[in-house]
Amino acid sequence: MKKKCIVLLSGGLDSTTCLAVAKSQDYDCYTLAIDYGQRHRSELLSSQRVSEYFNANDHKVINIDLRAIGGSALTADIEVPDHDVNKESEIPVTYVPARNTMFMSIALGYAETIGANDMFIGVNAVDYSGYPDCRKEFIQAYEKMANLATKAQVEGQKFTIHTPLIDLTKAEIIKLGVELGVDYGITVSCYNADEDGQACGVCDSCYYRKQGFKDANVKDPTRYLHD
Amino acid sequence: MKKKCIVLLSGGLDSTTCLAVAKSQDYDCYTLAIDYGQRHRSELLSSQRVSEYFNANDHKVINIDLRAIGGSALTADIEVPDHDVNKESEIPVTYVPARNTMFMSIALGYAETIGANDMFIGVNAVDYSGYPDCRKEFIQAYEKMANLATKAQVEGQKFTIHTPLIDLTKAEIIKLGVELGVDYGITVSCYNADEDGQACGVCDSCYYRKQGFKDANVKDPTRYLHD
Repeated sequence: MKKKCIVLLSGGLDSTTCLAVAKSQDYDCYTLAIDYGQRHRSELLSSQRVSEYFNANDHKVINIDLRAIGGSALTADIEVPDHDVNKESEIPVTYVPARNTMFMSIALGYAETIGANDMFIGVNAVDYSGYPDCRKEFIQAYEKMANLATKAQVEGQKFTIHTPLIDLTKAEIIKLGVELGVDYGITVSCYNADEDGQACGVCDSCYYRKQGFKDANVKDPTRYLHD
Repeated sequence: MKKKCIVLLSGGLDSTTCLAVAKSQDYDCYTLAIDYGQRHRSELLSSQRVSEYFNANDHKVINIDLRAIGGSALTADIEVPDHDVNKESEIPVTYVPARNTMFMSIALGYAETIGANDMFIGVNAVDYSGYPDCRKEFIQAYEKMANLATKAQVEGQKFTIHTPLIDLTKAEIIKLGVELGVDYGITVSCYNADEDGQACGVCDSCYYRKQGFKDANVKDPTRYLHD
């Protein structure tokens, strides 16, 4: 019997590649998307599409109303700014407080429910160096906590958090995905994407995505509103 | 200026006492209730009532749909059993996978948004010895992870998780609450409580509550359906 894993899947470039990695390691993949009231609703459609593309065992969407908290351009009435090369070392206004902590906790609850002891998350410490919850030391501390948190773990099963992209540049992620058969045309990364998945071309997320394809020397299939 | 704290408040006996402790330590208290689709909806009303009783600075309810995950008698169509003294060492079917991990993660996100570095949670390792996420070693690992998870913490602010009830018996919690002015008549612990807050009298939660008042030698103000 194959091992089950949860894959946190936003349907963007990173999480899609992460799912491709999990599939290549012969897991039964249960994809999990979080509807947290994010302004870019099209990522939920993309997530569903990507899960089907990779024949995941199941796709689940969990609702959590982070608009009731706010505090981010993705969950409050704050405008998403264009990418600014002078601000690359700052934590951007699109940062959602404790987002990965929350999403991994929901994934942990789901994992215990279906009997999975593995979780894949596409965090990346290279392009998003400003996000505290994308760093290795955070993931390690989280894994340690997770192994004390649940019934399954207390009963002796080891819970593992897989972060196959954590040390890769965007270009390396794209090359890996292409090798594993990812069609990036069905993924959406843009913070301002419209319902058809058309990207704005100027937000941080579009900036890193464009640059990644250029650096990887791979044709970018994304439809950008602004080049 | 007073320090701000988040208090996870279900409106039950433990979390209400925990709020009383936070108030007595002169914090500005922001109470947080989680609507996770729990079968005992009256705890959400109780939580609101208790928050007002203690003049909290704000009361927030965050929705997260754990019914989409299931796996517990509180979130799926599984019956809540009567308390069984022969099963006190087992993890009961009312256990919700990773619940405290999830709730603390939501509280962490809320804390960062309002600039709080303290969280109070009424976990208790004595009566709920079977719950992995009520133990000290779990809380310690969680706190360590939290201090790596957020922007505020990375910028040098220490995040502290307060568990003032963790070593107390139910009777000791009740005595402490009475000292601090808690009116337990407005709290609801029962897993089967009706909308008026009347308790069943026979579930695990009612069992420990009844026993606690008896042991504390304090008159129990709870309205039980079955004595």
